[in-house]
Amino acid sequence: AKPARVAVTPGDGIGPEVIHQSLRVLEHLRSQYGLPLEWDQLEWPSTDWHRRHGSMMPEDAMEQLAAYDAILLGALGDPGPRRDPNRYVLSDSVSLSPLLEMRKGFDQWVCERPARQLRGARQYLADPRAADTDMLVIRENSEGEYVGQGGRLRQGQPGEIATQTEIFTRFATERIIRYAFDRAQKRAAERRAANEARTFEALDGQTYESQVCVITKRNALRYWGDLYTEVFAEVAKDYPDVATTHELIDAACMKFVQAPWQFDVVVASNLQGDILTDLAAVISGGLGVAPSCNLNPDDPSRPSMFEPTHGSAPDIAGENKADPTAMLFTTARMLDWLGETRPPLADAGKALFEAVAADLEEHGHETRATDAIGDAILARLGA
Amino acid sequence: AKPARVAVTPGDGIGPEVIHQSLRVLEHLRSQYGLPLEWDQLEWPSTDWHRRHGSMMPEDAMEQLAAYDAILLGALGDPGPRRDPNRYVLSDSVSLSPLLEMRKGFDQWVCERPARQLRGARQYLADPRAADTDMLVIRENSEGEYVGQGGRLRQGQPGEIATQTEIFTRFATERIIRYAFDRAQKRAAERRAANEARTFEALDGQTYESQVCVITKRNALRYWGDLYTEVFAEVAKDYPDVATTHELIDAACMKFVQAPWQFDVVVASNLQGDILTDLAAVISGGLGVAPSCNLNPDDPSRPSMFEPTHGSAPDIAGENKADPTAMLFTTARMLDWLGETRPPLADAGKALFEAVAADLEEHGHETRATDAIGDAILARLGA
Ligand SMILES: CC(C)[C@H](C(=O)O)[C@@H](O)C(=O)O
Ligand SMILES: CC(C)[C@H](C(=O)O)[C@@H](O)C(=O)O
Repeated sequence: AKPARVAVTPGDGIGPEVIHQSLRVLEHLRSQYGLPLEWDQLEWPSTDWHRRHGSMMPEDAMEQLAAYDAILLGALGDPGPRRDPNRYVLSDSVSLSPLLEMRKGFDQWVCERPARQLRGARQYLADPRAADTDMLVIRENSEGEYVGQGGRLRQGQPGEIATQTEIFTRFATERIIRYAFDRAQKRAAERRAANEARTFEALDGQTYESQVCVITKRNALRYWGDLYTEVFAEVAKDYPDVATTHELIDAACMKFVQAPWQFDVVVASNLQGDILTDLAAVISGGLGVAPSCNLNPDDPSRPSMFEPTHGSAPDIAGENKADPTAMLFTTARMLDWLGETRPPLADAGKALFEAVAADLEEHGHETRATDAIGDAILARLGA
Repeated sequence: AKPARVAVTPGDGIGPEVIHQSLRVLEHLRSQYGLPLEWDQLEWPSTDWHRRHGSMMPEDAMEQLAAYDAILLGALGDPGPRRDPNRYVLSDSVSLSPLLEMRKGFDQWVCERPARQLRGARQYLADPRAADTDMLVIRENSEGEYVGQGGRLRQGQPGEIATQTEIFTRFATERIIRYAFDRAQKRAAERRAANEARTFEALDGQTYESQVCVITKRNALRYWGDLYTEVFAEVAKDYPDVATTHELIDAACMKFVQAPWQFDVVVASNLQGDILTDLAAVISGGLGVAPSCNLNPDDPSRPSMFEPTHGSAPDIAGENKADPTAMLFTTARMLDWLGETRPPLADAGKALFEAVAADLEEHGHETRATDAIGDAILARLGA
């Protein structure tokens, strides 16, 4: 089989350290499973590249990246301790722009962020039922609030006006909602296979094996709120086996804290998904364990991008303190994804997920060095 | 003194029940303190009014309301149990529209929602330090994401596009940020007077007695994010005694769950404030205890509006089960506000706040009937 090719982009801050653990693990898995897998490690996008060349990536970066099947990204943003006066500082909108460029340029229209309270992970909520939290937040990743349309009139003057236009298409709304329903069915099938069925009661009084909750703010942001509501109702007709529910973004944030175990799949717009995925990460153990991916499910010529939810954590960069758990879960998800057409990769992904989860269960959130965590997981994988 | 005049608008669902407790208490306080206070109870805005007249309020509602100094509102929205097929159903955008109409029509540009973990209130977070949570979220209430500009092109067709334009002015940005700094100073002064000073460390290494955190999403929604950032920096110069900090909305939601005790005053745009205030409510005891107000601080001819953060809770409406605590805290805040020019009202507001807090501390979140809670608080007030 043609090997899967991965562009490894460590990025800034703790990115290189956590990526290093991923590469150690991938190296081992490749030889253990004889995986058809190759990678190149790139120096960009990064703040360091910007320092040397005046931009986060070379001009032909997107063409270079297009040659890969996946991008494994560490973190972008501030590269080092805030108190270091000599650090090379960029505004967030510059240093993080490659993320948005890749998401848009490769039409990675799905952002998936599972929020499952794994054993051993920190539990921020007092209610013991929070231990059962197991949801998947699906974020529309290609349009909406993130289209970057708008401007500033009379900039800096008393009469200044700033506008920001959100643009939503039925096309992108429908594909993301349909994707959410497909994932809900798949999750139900996986639970059935594992004898771990869950039930969700719907307003009609019936019970279902899976659920999709759509998020809007239709009482205040009507135009796209109505579009989302209508498309959701139409698509739902094709999935009579899935319970449906609707939450306003403000109420959803509350319910994530009050009763996160009641959710299954949640589908939200770009900004609301951004907010809910961070919240979901923290109520299921924190950023140290939260994986993330940006997928293009229908165009194999465009790479998907895998990055942990966390940022570059400048204050602990370079100190061998960063927790690589989220990065390793993200790497497992990448193998899983590349494995859809290359089964051995999927097996390796499953093994990696289980090793990381077992390590977390054993060590909880003890303070351990970055490479000690990598060592422990390699040992579990038989290295 | 000319008495303060209040328009009491019970609204829908549990609104009438919780407002009823407020009126019992106000009646008592009025005679006990000889308060210069009058009120009229209105049947609108309400879903019932809509059922009878085809709209939530009469046509001259805003003129009628303008004659009052304050509006005390119960709740709007779905009036009764969702399973009741005969209930009169309106879309949220109709039933809740009077809230937005009042906020805009009376230029109630400040929405204040304190989030203080009072003793006895539910504690959703596992970390014991959450007991010290005491912040004030200030929401810009007049523009931004809520301007209602946009539309749907090719509605219902495959090529549909929905747009929603956010509009931010330097004028409204500056007044809300300045208001936040003023409130931070006032909170610091109150804490000093009560011998309960807090300290906030800033990036410069210095410590301060108060803090303002501004929220944006400037890395993705740049135009107004930059406007907010710049105005915040300018206004901050006038408040050298207040520590400043900046959080992106997604990170802020996380920190509200991870370490809410680190915040003092938080200032956010209309939508982000909507999200953060609901989240703040839940991490400081839940909607059952969360007051809210919509203020016009500079034009006495325009009434301010006081409503609890909770909604109409249709499923328990009419069952004497609703918790009037949030409504009573809201009523205390109204007395406090009206008392700025009428001191006896402020004294009564303080007494009411203390009675409700003491009741909460004694009974925690036991299940009690709506009127039993009213009785207990009246008893504490010497009725
Ligand atoms: C870095 C930033 C632009 C990004 C986003 O808002 O999408 C981040 O918060 C995320 O969630 O991946
Ligand atoms: C009812 C709704 C329009 C309102 C808002 O979004 O402002 C509510 O959520 C609130 O927070 O008061």
